[in-house]
Amino acid sequence: MTKVKVAINGYGTIGKRVADAVALQDDMEIIGIAKTRPNFETVMAKDKGFNVYTLADRVGAMEKEGIEVSGTVEEMIKAADVVVDCTPGKVGATNKDLYEKAGIKAIWQGGEAHTLTGCSFNAETNYDEALGKDFVRVVSCNTTGLCRVLSPLDKEFGVKKARVTLLRRAADPGDIKTGPINAIVPNPIKLPSHHGPDVKTVIPNIDIATTAVKLPTTLMHLHTINLELEKECTAEDVESVLAEQSRVRFVGQGITSTAEIMELAKDLGRSRGDMWENCIWNESITMYEGELYFFQAIHQESDVIPENIDAIRAMMELESDASRSIEITNKTMGI
Amino acid sequence: MTKVKVAINGYGTIGKRVADAVALQDDMEIIGIAKTRPNFETVMAKDKGFNVYTLADRVGAMEKEGIEVSGTVEEMIKAADVVVDCTPGKVGATNKDLYEKAGIKAIWQGGEAHTLTGCSFNAETNYDEALGKDFVRVVSCNTTGLCRVLSPLDKEFGVKKARVTLLRRAADPGDIKTGPINAIVPNPIKLPSHHGPDVKTVIPNIDIATTAVKLPTTLMHLHTINLELEKECTAEDVESVLAEQSRVRFVGQGITSTAEIMELAKDLGRSRGDMWENCIWNESITMYEGELYFFQAIHQESDVIPENIDAIRAMMELESDASRSIEITNKTMGI
Repeated sequence: MTKVKVAINGYGTIGKRVADAVALQDDMEIIGIAKTRPNFETVMAKDKGFNVYTLADRVGAMEKEGIEVSGTVEEMIKAADVVVDCTPGKVGATNKDLYEKAGIKAIWQGGEAHTLTGCSFNAETNYDEALGKDFVRVVSCNTTGLCRVLSPLDKEFGVKKARVTLLRRAADPGDIKTGPINAIVPNPIKLPSHHGPDVKTVIPNIDIATTAVKLPTTLMHLHTINLELEKECTAEDVESVLAEQSRVRFVGQGITSTAEIMELAKDLGRSRGDMWENCIWNESITMYEGELYFFQAIHQESDVIPENIDAIRAMMELESDASRSIEITNKTMGI
Repeated sequence: MTKVKVAINGYGTIGKRVADAVALQDDMEIIGIAKTRPNFETVMAKDKGFNVYTLADRVGAMEKEGIEVSGTVEEMIKAADVVVDCTPGKVGATNKDLYEKAGIKAIWQGGEAHTLTGCSFNAETNYDEALGKDFVRVVSCNTTGLCRVLSPLDKEFGVKKARVTLLRRAADPGDIKTGPINAIVPNPIKLPSHHGPDVKTVIPNIDIATTAVKLPTTLMHLHTINLELEKECTAEDVESVLAEQSRVRFVGQGITSTAEIMELAKDLGRSRGDMWENCIWNESITMYEGELYFFQAIHQESDVIPENIDAIRAMMELESDASRSIEITNKTMGI
C-alpha cells in the first residue's frame, strides 16, 4: 500500500504530537516538518529522523545552529499529499494560498476561523462531512472535548439546551511568558463566549451558551456542563452512553483534580504524559431537578491529536467509515 | 449613648477585620479580642489598644512572648453584650454552651451549620429576621455575594432558576500550607454543590443549582451566574437594579481580572486592601436566549465584614430598619 505523504507545517505543541501520531500509522508517513526557529524541538525532530524544512530566509539561521535543512516550506509542500498546518492561530490562514497553488489538501487547527475551510471536524460527530474534502479545520481542544459528549448525548436523548462554563488553563506547561500567575480572568467579559458558536460549526443545530475564564494553571481545562435533555433519563442512562465513547475516560479512584489526571497519564506510559480522552468524573454525573450536570477535564495539548489523524484519513478517503478510522487511530496510539 | 459591648472570639482573617469595623461604629465598642496563639496578629491587636484574652491554658504561652493578657475567654464573654465568634469553621459550634451559660448574644460565621442558630443572615435580604435574636449566623463570603444579587433580582423580576458556577480561590493570601499550586479541583465532585442549599437558608424559596471548583489563586472568588427570570426584562433593566445596591460595585475601565480589582481596592486606600462589595463586570450583564448571564468577583476575606456589623445592630435592636443600619455601616467603613 502506498502511504499518504503528510507534511507538518509548524512543529510546536500540536505539530510535534501530530507528527508522532502520523508516524504510528500504517497508511500514512511524515515526509517532513517545517519549523522557523532552530530550538530544542527542531533538534528533536532531526533526532527522530524527520526531514526539517524552513522558510527560505531562515535556512541560514538553522544551518548556523548545525541543523541540516532539507529545503524550503514550498519544497516540502510540493512533496506532500496533505499538509497539517500547526502554525500559530491566524498565521495558518495566511498559508492557504500556498497550499492551493501547490494543489494539496490541508488541515488547520482550531485557532483558525471556520470560514477558512467551511468544514470543521470532530471524528465522532461528522467524519463523513470531511470525506474527500481538500480543506478541513480540526476544532480546538475545548470544542473537541464538548463535541465528544454533546454529540452522543444529543443523538441519544436530544440536547434541548447546553450551558457550559469553560475553566481554561491560561498557558501550556512550557510557556513562561503568559499569565496570570495569581488571578481569575473572565475571558471574554462580554457574554456569552465564542465557544458556543464554535461547537455549532460541528453540531449546527445545538442550542448552547458558554462562559469562559482563564486560570493560573497549565495542566488542563475543566468544563462544568449543564444540559437540559429532550428525553427523560437517569444519570445511569447518561453514564452508559458516555461509557461507550472510545475517547471518553471515566476518572475516580482518588483522582480529585487535573493534576492527578496528568499523573495518571504519565503512569500509563503515555507519550509526553498526554491524555487524549475527555476525562469525566462519573461520580459527578447527576440529574438534579430534571437537568444533567457533570465535570470533565480536557488536556489542551493533546485531545485533538487523534482527531487530526482521522481527518487525514477522511480527506484522503483511506477509510469511508468513521468508526473504523477511529478504531485504527485509537489502537495505534494506545487509547 | 451607651455603646454595645462587643467581644471578638478568634482574631484571624475575619475576626481582626470585624474588630476594626466595630471600632469605627458610634453605637458599639470592642471590649476585647480572644486569640489562642501569640503571633504577629496578637501583637497588632495589642498595638491597636484592644484587650487580649485567651484560653486559660494559653495565658502562660502569651505572657512568655511578652503579650499582656487581660483574662480568659470566659472573663471576656462575661463583660460583653454580644460575641462575634470568628474561630475556625466547626470550632465555633463548640462555644455555644459557653455563650448560653453567660447569657450573651452570639454571631457565628458561614463555616458553621445553619441549624446552630436557625437564623442565617444577609443584611439586604433578611435583616428583620435577626431583630432581637440571640444567635445569628452570618453566611459565608460566597453565600453573601450570591444573596446580594439574587435577593434584589428576585424581588424585582422573580428568579425562576439560578445556575451558578463558583470558582473559588483555594487559599487566602497569607496561607502557605494549602494547595493546589497548579491544578483545577472540582470540589465537591458530587453535584450539585452545597452552596445552593446554603443560599436557601437566607432566601428559602429560591430555585438554585451550584457547581464549584477550587483554583490555584488566593485573591478572590469569581461567580459565573445564569438566571432564568419570571418577568421579561432587558440587560439594562438588570443593570439598573444592581446599580442601586450599595454593596455592589461595577467594574470596567481596564479591569479584566480579580488581580486588578485587588489593585483598585488598594488604590482606594481601603484598610488591608479589602473589597467589601460584590464586583460585577457590567459589560458582562447579558440577556441571551431569554436568560441572564453575568460575572461577579467576591473578596472572600472581607465581604462579610459589613454584614457582621449589621447583624450586631439587628440583634441588639440598635436599628429596626435594615436600610438605616446598612447606611451607617457603609458610611463608617467607607463603602
